[in-house]
Amino acid sequence: MSAMDADTTLAGADRAADVRRRRALAAAIDAGDADAVARLLDGADASAIADALESMEPGPRCSAWRQIAPGCRGEVLVEAHGEVRRQLIACTSADALVVAVAPLDLDALSDIDADLPTEVLDRVLAGMEAKRRRRFDLLRTHPDDSAGGLMDADPVAVRPGDTLAQAAQAMRRHCAEHGRLPAHLDALMVTDEDDRYLGRIDVADLLVRDPADEVRSHLRTAPGPIDVAISADDVARRFGDLNLVSSAVVDDHGRLLGRITVDDVVDILRRQAERSQLANTGLDEETDAFAPLLVASRQRALWLGVNLCNALVAAWIISLFAVTIDQLVALAVLMPVVASMGGVAGTQSLALAIRAIALDQVQPGNRGRLLRRELAIGGLNAALWAVVVAAVAMAWFGSAALAGVFSLAVVLNLLSGVFAGTLIPIGLERLGVDPALAGGVVLVALTDALGFGVFLGLGTWLLL
Amino acid sequence: MSAMDADTTLAGADRAADVRRRRALAAAIDAGDADAVARLLDGADASAIADALESMEPGPRCSAWRQIAPGCRGEVLVEAHGEVRRQLIACTSADALVVAVAPLDLDALSDIDADLPTEVLDRVLAGMEAKRRRRFDLLRTHPDDSAGGLMDADPVAVRPGDTLAQAAQAMRRHCAEHGRLPAHLDALMVTDEDDRYLGRIDVADLLVRDPADEVRSHLRTAPGPIDVAISADDVARRFGDLNLVSSAVVDDHGRLLGRITVDDVVDILRRQAERSQLANTGLDEETDAFAPLLVASRQRALWLGVNLCNALVAAWIISLFAVTIDQLVALAVLMPVVASMGGVAGTQSLALAIRAIALDQVQPGNRGRLLRRELAIGGLNAALWAVVVAAVAMAWFGSAALAGVFSLAVVLNLLSGVFAGTLIPIGLERLGVDPALAGGVVLVALTDALGFGVFLGLGTWLLL
Repeated sequence: MSAMDADTTLAGADRAADVRRRRALAAAIDAGDADAVARLLDGADASAIADALESMEPGPRCSAWRQIAPGCRGEVLVEAHGEVRRQLIACTSADALVVAVAPLDLDALSDIDADLPTEVLDRVLAGMEAKRRRRFDLLRTHPDDSAGGLMDADPVAVRPGDTLAQAAQAMRRHCAEHGRLPAHLDALMVTDEDDRYLGRIDVADLLVRDPADEVRSHLRTAPGPIDVAISADDVARRFGDLNLVSSAVVDDHGRLLGRITVDDVVDILRRQAERSQLANTGLDEETDAFAPLLVASRQRALWLGVNLCNALVAAWIISLFAVTIDQLVALAVLMPVVASMGGVAGTQSLALAIRAIALDQVQPGNRGRLLRRELAIGGLNAALWAVVVAAVAMAWFGSAALAGVFSLAVVLNLLSGVFAGTLIPIGLERLGVDPALAGGVVLVALTDALGFGVFLGLGTWLLL
Repeated sequence: MSAMDADTTLAGADRAADVRRRRALAAAIDAGDADAVARLLDGADASAIADALESMEPGPRCSAWRQIAPGCRGEVLVEAHGEVRRQLIACTSADALVVAVAPLDLDALSDIDADLPTEVLDRVLAGMEAKRRRRFDLLRTHPDDSAGGLMDADPVAVRPGDTLAQAAQAMRRHCAEHGRLPAHLDALMVTDEDDRYLGRIDVADLLVRDPADEVRSHLRTAPGPIDVAISADDVARRFGDLNLVSSAVVDDHGRLLGRITVDDVVDILRRQAERSQLANTGLDEETDAFAPLLVASRQRALWLGVNLCNALVAAWIISLFAVTIDQLVALAVLMPVVASMGGVAGTQSLALAIRAIALDQVQPGNRGRLLRRELAIGGLNAALWAVVVAAVAMAWFGSAALAGVFSLAVVLNLLSGVFAGTLIPIGLERLGVDPALAGGVVLVALTDALGFGVFLGLGTWLLL
């Protein structure tokens, strides 16, 4: 057997062992065997542990959690989603929590501090050295979903007049003081004597340039720093647009407050994707997928209740035309078609408008253009489908009058759907509601009600 | 005026200027003024230029594009979405394209090579030095949406026996040879004499550790390398789980092929989020939001046609019960309620199943558990809403028999929705179709048809 063959076999064996371990883990989770889960998770990374715990029922989850090595528990709490995290905290003693969260990075700690019992947080804060404590207090003054809430308040900063050798020395000093370097340290921040941000110098430059050069001669001023008050979504967009690994965060006066690293941005983007997946279900990415049945049922019941109200409004509109339906049953047969064509056309406009908002393409100046464009596309589609549905109704029911009413109702509801689908997200955005979360429900309630009302109303007026 | 005031005013003025520029840009785009757009974009980053071009109508877009500095055009092509990119390429001469794309990174070039005219690509390849050409050919053997398609095939590699000083020297040599360092260089790869990957050494360690140390004494072996064949989605999950900035990519034999950096992962995640936003609309993230009206209408028409077929099936089912409706109009009034309750409950299960698949929580071993859990939650909700809808029907129509049938139909359709909502994504995933894209349409077609059929069928059987 050649060395290469041995190696291939080894890689194959590694993968087979990995698949076996995952299967064993899934089986242990499925069986609720907390001991086996804890044993299989020994040495896994925090994210894998959090995933496994989230896949468990709350009872075994707690038992498995108690067997996770105390040193890993802090990171697992940071990785876990909202409801699961709160449950894990609830089944841990105050002493164990202090041990778990005290070594966390300040920005990680500030992500979970709201979920910690006051007593635990007070003890952790009391154990911090004064400088670290001040930085943490600074972090906590900013909302979690802003640049300030994402930043790590511990940047390594140098002066423009320092030599590269001195800058490298500052890194060594930081490392000696803190036992390690800040995560993802791709650049040092350069500030003036008033702590104002001037630019950054790449760590790689410290290695490849002449150590006697001054920092100012390799200073990079573009891209500029991030304002502490901008939203997490804007931070993510900026990192994506400019391919950043880290960025300085400054206050109103341009003073350096901290730095944001790309791992936080990756987390933001993943939660955004989860949020879109759960859009229009009344659930969010903090939902515990394995919450006790009663809790899970209650979360979903609320949304079903909202939908029932919408559906009853549509039913009430139909009931207004009971006499018409009684005389012309074909209307009852075709009315869901009218409602659904409006719903689908509206959903397309809604999704594109939400995307345009997310990509920052919607400005006060071009809303009119977006709407005109959507209506023009809707008009072309309405013309096409007017002919198709008229032909279908004609062939099916043999009535030109019915075909005409059906076709007209489809056109009107399709255009209403497009109109509403474009304006609803712009309106929700202005109200401060995330249009991706509830836009679809508002839209479908509208196109259903309008679809039934317009079709049955036209039928009553023109066919009876 | 103190220095601080001057600075605040400056920062404020900067922001005001930025807002003014964005307004002016939006106005110029809205007016289709290509000259003004090109002028306002002068000096902007590639991503901002791509965004602005994507917001324009195809005609002015082409005129503005021709005025973008040739040096920026390559990056803009990489940033632009599929259809827009192809249009920009179509309105550029072969000579200009060669100038634009020749300086691109190899992984960027491999992202757009399929869209380039053969002649242009051939000329670019002919102009490459042999080593670079070989690396590019290697990249192109891997699909764009795999680790191999994402990697940059130009890692800086050192040996375990090298000293840190020699490793730093290797960086300097690479920099001198290529004119710059690889992007996001947070670590050097460590390989043996057969090019097999052993681990990595942090660039920061080169600065803070003793230069006389051997690389092996600071070698980091965890996290392990990425297999060249895994999917882009799996790469993104791994980067997110392990907070990586870059990772080695290896072949089946453990040989180092290249490295993936986090900026590619951020792009993957942003496209995932866009794809979820456009789910169930028949559109995808490559869609040009400002395509000519006829093209845009055609894309949307297809989806409306699919929906029309579904809706006509539902209408046909209703027509089977025309005699029943004729005798009991209340059934026509209430039937959309039955259909929509099933649709909403099913959509909730669908979204959670899609999330569980995306988070890799669904294994062959626990599908049964997921389904049992969803059915239990659906059962609890069905019990709740059975009572509510029966009470509503009783109060509205005063018929216990009608209330009973209505309530039973809601229960049956709600449970069917939950059952289908859980199984559809698992089935689509096994068929290799992304469940997030079309799952909702399949589900609603089913819950509509079942809702109408079950309710009217029960009504015919029990009420007439």
